[in-house]
Amino acid sequence: MPDHNRPAFELTILGSSSATPTSTRNPTSQFLTISDRYMLIDCGEGTQMQLRRYKIKFQRIDHIFISHLHGDHYLGLPGLLASMHLLGRTKPLNLYAPPELQEILEVQHKHSETFLQFPIKFHALSFDKGRLLFEDERLRVDSIVLNHRIPCCGFLFREKEMPRKIKAEALKKYNIPLKNINGIKEGNDFKTGDGTVIPNAEITLDPPDPRSYAYCSDTIYDESLIEKLRGADLLYHEATFMNDMKERAKETYHSTASQAGTIAKRSKVKKLIIGHFSARYNDLDGLLSEARTVFKDTELALEGERFSP
Amino acid sequence: MPDHNRPAFELTILGSSSATPTSTRNPTSQFLTISDRYMLIDCGEGTQMQLRRYKIKFQRIDHIFISHLHGDHYLGLPGLLASMHLLGRTKPLNLYAPPELQEILEVQHKHSETFLQFPIKFHALSFDKGRLLFEDERLRVDSIVLNHRIPCCGFLFREKEMPRKIKAEALKKYNIPLKNINGIKEGNDFKTGDGTVIPNAEITLDPPDPRSYAYCSDTIYDESLIEKLRGADLLYHEATFMNDMKERAKETYHSTASQAGTIAKRSKVKKLIIGHFSARYNDLDGLLSEARTVFKDTELALEGERFSP
Repeated sequence: MPDHNRPAFELTILGSSSATPTSTRNPTSQFLTISDRYMLIDCGEGTQMQLRRYKIKFQRIDHIFISHLHGDHYLGLPGLLASMHLLGRTKPLNLYAPPELQEILEVQHKHSETFLQFPIKFHALSFDKGRLLFEDERLRVDSIVLNHRIPCCGFLFREKEMPRKIKAEALKKYNIPLKNINGIKEGNDFKTGDGTVIPNAEITLDPPDPRSYAYCSDTIYDESLIEKLRGADLLYHEATFMNDMKERAKETYHSTASQAGTIAKRSKVKKLIIGHFSARYNDLDGLLSEARTVFKDTELALEGERFSP
Repeated sequence: MPDHNRPAFELTILGSSSATPTSTRNPTSQFLTISDRYMLIDCGEGTQMQLRRYKIKFQRIDHIFISHLHGDHYLGLPGLLASMHLLGRTKPLNLYAPPELQEILEVQHKHSETFLQFPIKFHALSFDKGRLLFEDERLRVDSIVLNHRIPCCGFLFREKEMPRKIKAEALKKYNIPLKNINGIKEGNDFKTGDGTVIPNAEITLDPPDPRSYAYCSDTIYDESLIEKLRGADLLYHEATFMNDMKERAKETYHSTASQAGTIAKRSKVKKLIIGHFSARYNDLDGLLSEARTVFKDTELALEGERFSP
């Protein structure tokens, strides 16, 4: 019997190309589900078609995070919002994005005479330091300031510690009443009818370790990230170029596959996903093996691939 | 021996869905080539990926026509312009569109700090009456004012009459000198050395009939179009709904398949293409047969299909 059924924590890659898409690679977007929270991370052109392709119910998305305002990271958003509207959405949508995105959307909606039937709760990103963006009983999401040509944030998604699990046999053996359950899950000991104290550790199991996902969309090689990403279960780090183009990477405030591997290794994450590949690479094997030379547990962000910590 | 090699006149469907795309149908866009002129008509989300899919060299496109500012007709434009820029375009691009599109693009470019390396020659559409938009020695393009919820234009592409063809045997028989050739092609008779007048009709062939394509993107059923479309070789007319939803079509300023057929029949065009299908229709056979009941020579605008007059 499994000790516990963990809630979902799954990332789906919707697009992995850098600025110019190719015939097989879409611009950046990822779909993340943690428990029953549906979240979209960046929304390049074609994201709504990709969501349909992978049969993701996009009306269930309540949080959209946009890292920065280069077109390959947000140009799919107006179309997605329009489709949500046309398909009858009324519930609010949380949008975490650079403040200027509001003006971009307003101008478009004005000229198309579009009046969305659902409210957008706009949460303006700031770029001075990482901030808490969202928190509930299961999850917290923080921004990570990245160093790119224009203001840009990554995002860190962290599960919260779950309550302890009461052992089924302990429930039966000590006939634990309902009113004590929540306290025991939070770590209380249990006192039986005759006053005997049963230590919490004897009647409960440790909760699973909280899982985390860090998303670094567009960034120059930046060692100040290492501390912020430390120990993440899953790290997405852009790898626009191979290392023979590291000068070009630096000029354009992007990273190489080798640099992504270095950040993963030094921040001691468990798994690295690389993406945002330049259109010049038809074959991605070179990028993958370059990153793996530095950090073994690396995978490619390929359209439709799913990852869990 | 063929009488003449006609230059290309070919339409490629890039997207055929109405406002919400489906997993198999993209929002509206069409690629038209007449002689060596490459033109794009509307540019819904994902158009640049569709151009790649069908191996169309998009840097050769010099004219883009945007019918109106509903998102499904232009949201792919910013991404296409960005890719043209990133791939090194420097030659000018002509953009025919509602004037407000300039503001939309400017706001986006400002916030992404994008400075296109090629000039956009912006030609603002007007909506009071049809206007000449472009003309050269081979082609003229006029706008057709449509009746939709927001200002909207269709486009009429017409080849110009080509010069007459001189018969090869006449050239030889009368030993026609080079200096007379152009005049004869324009319809002049030929006077031989002894003063005999050879009538033009005897030494030339009629040029082929000029071909035409009319594009009616989004429009309510509108009989005032009949005169404007009269005799077109190829007509694209939207058919968002089937006739059982004609009230819904009217409310949303769209047309039914049957209404598209009626416009085609009454304007005596040669062939009708219907498109802009509502996402509610998985199977398009009903739309096609409904239109064909009224106008036999009807085809569906399916992604990747090519049509010539």
